[in-house]
Amino acid sequence: TPDEFKETYQEFVINGWNSVPFSPEYEGQGLPWLVSSAVSEMWSGANMAFALCPLLTQGSVELLSAHGSDQQKEFYLKKLISGEWTGTMCLTEPNAGSDVGAVATKAIKDGDCYRISGQKIFITYGEHDFTENIVHMVLARTEDAPKGAKGISLFIVPKFLSDGSRNDVKALSLEHKLGIHASPTAVMSFGDEDGAVGYLVGEESQGLKYMFTMMNNARLAVGIEGVALAENSCQQATEYAQERRQWDTPIAEFPDVKRMLLTMRANADSMRVLGLYIAKAIDLANNHADEEVRQKNNAIVQILIPVFKAHATDLGFEMSSLAVQVFGGVGYIEETGIAQNLRDSRIAMIYEGTNGIQAMDLVGRKITLENGGLFDVLILDMQNLYKNSAYKDLLDEYLEKIVATTKIIQQNQEQAAHSSTPYLKMLGIFIGAVMLAKSADAAKNAGSLSEEFVANKLGITEFYMKNLLPQVKYFVEIIGG
Amino acid sequence: TPDEFKETYQEFVINGWNSVPFSPEYEGQGLPWLVSSAVSEMWSGANMAFALCPLLTQGSVELLSAHGSDQQKEFYLKKLISGEWTGTMCLTEPNAGSDVGAVATKAIKDGDCYRISGQKIFITYGEHDFTENIVHMVLARTEDAPKGAKGISLFIVPKFLSDGSRNDVKALSLEHKLGIHASPTAVMSFGDEDGAVGYLVGEESQGLKYMFTMMNNARLAVGIEGVALAENSCQQATEYAQERRQWDTPIAEFPDVKRMLLTMRANADSMRVLGLYIAKAIDLANNHADEEVRQKNNAIVQILIPVFKAHATDLGFEMSSLAVQVFGGVGYIEETGIAQNLRDSRIAMIYEGTNGIQAMDLVGRKITLENGGLFDVLILDMQNLYKNSAYKDLLDEYLEKIVATTKIIQQNQEQAAHSSTPYLKMLGIFIGAVMLAKSADAAKNAGSLSEEFVANKLGITEFYMKNLLPQVKYFVEIIGG
Repeated sequence: TPDEFKETYQEFVINGWNSVPFSPEYEGQGLPWLVSSAVSEMWSGANMAFALCPLLTQGSVELLSAHGSDQQKEFYLKKLISGEWTGTMCLTEPNAGSDVGAVATKAIKDGDCYRISGQKIFITYGEHDFTENIVHMVLARTEDAPKGAKGISLFIVPKFLSDGSRNDVKALSLEHKLGIHASPTAVMSFGDEDGAVGYLVGEESQGLKYMFTMMNNARLAVGIEGVALAENSCQQATEYAQERRQWDTPIAEFPDVKRMLLTMRANADSMRVLGLYIAKAIDLANNHADEEVRQKNNAIVQILIPVFKAHATDLGFEMSSLAVQVFGGVGYIEETGIAQNLRDSRIAMIYEGTNGIQAMDLVGRKITLENGGLFDVLILDMQNLYKNSAYKDLLDEYLEKIVATTKIIQQNQEQAAHSSTPYLKMLGIFIGAVMLAKSADAAKNAGSLSEEFVANKLGITEFYMKNLLPQVKYFVEIIGG
Repeated sequence: TPDEFKETYQEFVINGWNSVPFSPEYEGQGLPWLVSSAVSEMWSGANMAFALCPLLTQGSVELLSAHGSDQQKEFYLKKLISGEWTGTMCLTEPNAGSDVGAVATKAIKDGDCYRISGQKIFITYGEHDFTENIVHMVLARTEDAPKGAKGISLFIVPKFLSDGSRNDVKALSLEHKLGIHASPTAVMSFGDEDGAVGYLVGEESQGLKYMFTMMNNARLAVGIEGVALAENSCQQATEYAQERRQWDTPIAEFPDVKRMLLTMRANADSMRVLGLYIAKAIDLANNHADEEVRQKNNAIVQILIPVFKAHATDLGFEMSSLAVQVFGGVGYIEETGIAQNLRDSRIAMIYEGTNGIQAMDLVGRKITLENGGLFDVLILDMQNLYKNSAYKDLLDEYLEKIVATTKIIQQNQEQAAHSSTPYLKMLGIFIGAVMLAKSADAAKNAGSLSEEFVANKLGITEFYMKNLLPQVKYFVEIIGG
């Protein structure tokens, strides 16, 4: 990591940014995910490589909060929440990428603990000098465990043990990556000597199930990285286009550059609203007093997470590429800085479940769950969101096509597999329109916003409806065809 | 450049690859651009950074062939064609990017020659150690020349003068770029001391006009870089997907991966055929005995060059990104090699006229030239190409929409400016379909091809018609709307 990161991390934790959404019981701030998600966008937008470190700690906190013993919570949670220690997620192995069930790392029982041995790859912040200890959350297979996904358990493997001795875990190398250069991605080796000491979380063979606990929030956070990079790209490109002159005119005034800037603005805004909408639904699903409200919001989260993770990260990358185009030749020069967005944003389409895996989750699971009940909840919710919008009729027309296309997919799983990505894009673009329609509506009726702000919001929404939303019909056609 | 490049370049020229399309009068091989373009794809696909060096020499050869004096031709052409020397194009300055007319570099007459002073940026292979001399083709402004584009002249500024002395031109620095790392991109300074010696090409104030001589071939070559990177990406991703297993199955068998591989294959194939079709039209426009055939082919070249340059380079980048996605996590690691395609391919959308400039050239100029006559020639030609295809009816339907949309654009230049890029994409995707329809047709009727090859060709064409061609309707809608 850059020299400045260690100090920056200290400021980050001292100022409380690490503990925003976590339980006050362990000295977290107990703020809603809605607030935490808005904060996350700013950190990822400022520096995605830096922001990855607390993001991985977040995953560890969630796993331990949900499944750790009281003793584990007491010992690890406070230090992870305060940021005194950081966490990692050790899932991937050379032969276990999308197929996490193929994990081969071994865990052999040894008294109260286990001895872990094996190799993990792509471990974000697997090694660094920010903190005195690093807490690895490791998936491994116990002796005589069932084959495949069912035989995997979850372990805590700290870099240093509670007696201060070094555990048998080390980073073998750091990857040379396309982007997020400042984020150390390690190959981690466990048990080169006696076996790394690991502490079982919860029960044996429940590791993958536990992982799902933190998956929604992790995927939300990665989608927000997409929003953050789209936003940062939009801001950089807009500033440059206003300053750079050709033919004695700021290039921002050329229609084709305008088109690019508006595309960035509309996509960043729509995906921001969607991310926050999901964050709010997570809060309601977790905490609302009414069981029915919790269930409804849980359905919305389940179905929107894969859509948001994939579509927002696709857009994060595409908008970064558009920004490079606005910069032209200087955009290709690394010192300019915008090329970094292109490189950084690309990983978000791959990690935390590739966007293809998200599409499989959507069509193969989410839209068929409860006989399509989750999808029905989503549709009612979307209708409710845009019912007072100026675009109600337009969105109704689109909704009808989307419902019909979804029926095809629900009834034919072979067709579903072939159309998974187009289907996800179709839904993502439509839902982006609903989010903008709702927020334009809200801006118009707020009363407290400047005329300029409202006019801008309406203009961006109109641009989206005319220029981006019609892509839905293309996807409808190729799925149906 | 890498150590190996100097030696590789020597082999390249000794084996005659530098001289393929040039005049036998100056020891070129006199082969058609059709052949040369097929050769170019292989070089760019093997290493885009290396292939850029002869590409810039090609531009110099064309400029001097068309506008140089006999003496200049005798002195420079043979050495540039043999590859003993290389050439550069010194157009861009910090304030003269897309607006080439803003060139500020000065040329002051000094006896038989001129003294050139100024700074040029983004000069590909502006300095290197492959050859003993480098011939810079420089745009500069003579004293009392008219302002803007009309006052620019073209000069030859060699690194070493004919008496062996060093000319007053040097590389100030090399850029640190997103990609094509092995291609040195220099900031060139002319006339830090006495003024660099420059020799006028042709007449004063004709510099930009001369540049247009080599522009079609240069833009064709950049489009071919797009094809080359799409092809290389497709090959690498296909090989990886056949080897990499998850859930005990090669990932190439998963429907979503299949979709990505077919998208790469269909786009690479369609753009290859289009590039070669344009190359053939250039040959016919230059050399056919019949004036009418020459004119018709010239019209086809004029209108297809911006479409091909922009659309094929967009696809080169997009297909490289798809290939990274097929590789997943390892695709993000630089050692894997596929991320290089993503980085390298990105520049082709920017240089040799950004893709936005291509779209402006298409809608603001090419489709209105001769009262839309060029467009009419293109349409007749396309109809003729697909008239025996199995997709005739389908393509007729699309053609009708395209003609109607073109009328809107031809009659309303403000609408044209706002829709330039969508219009170009619309045309590019449709013409890609025509190219595949024609080549499927040719494959079926060849008689000499294996059943497997023909079945493959038909399958790819069918995939394009069903999954990619319908994008045209989206662009039609947003242009008309």
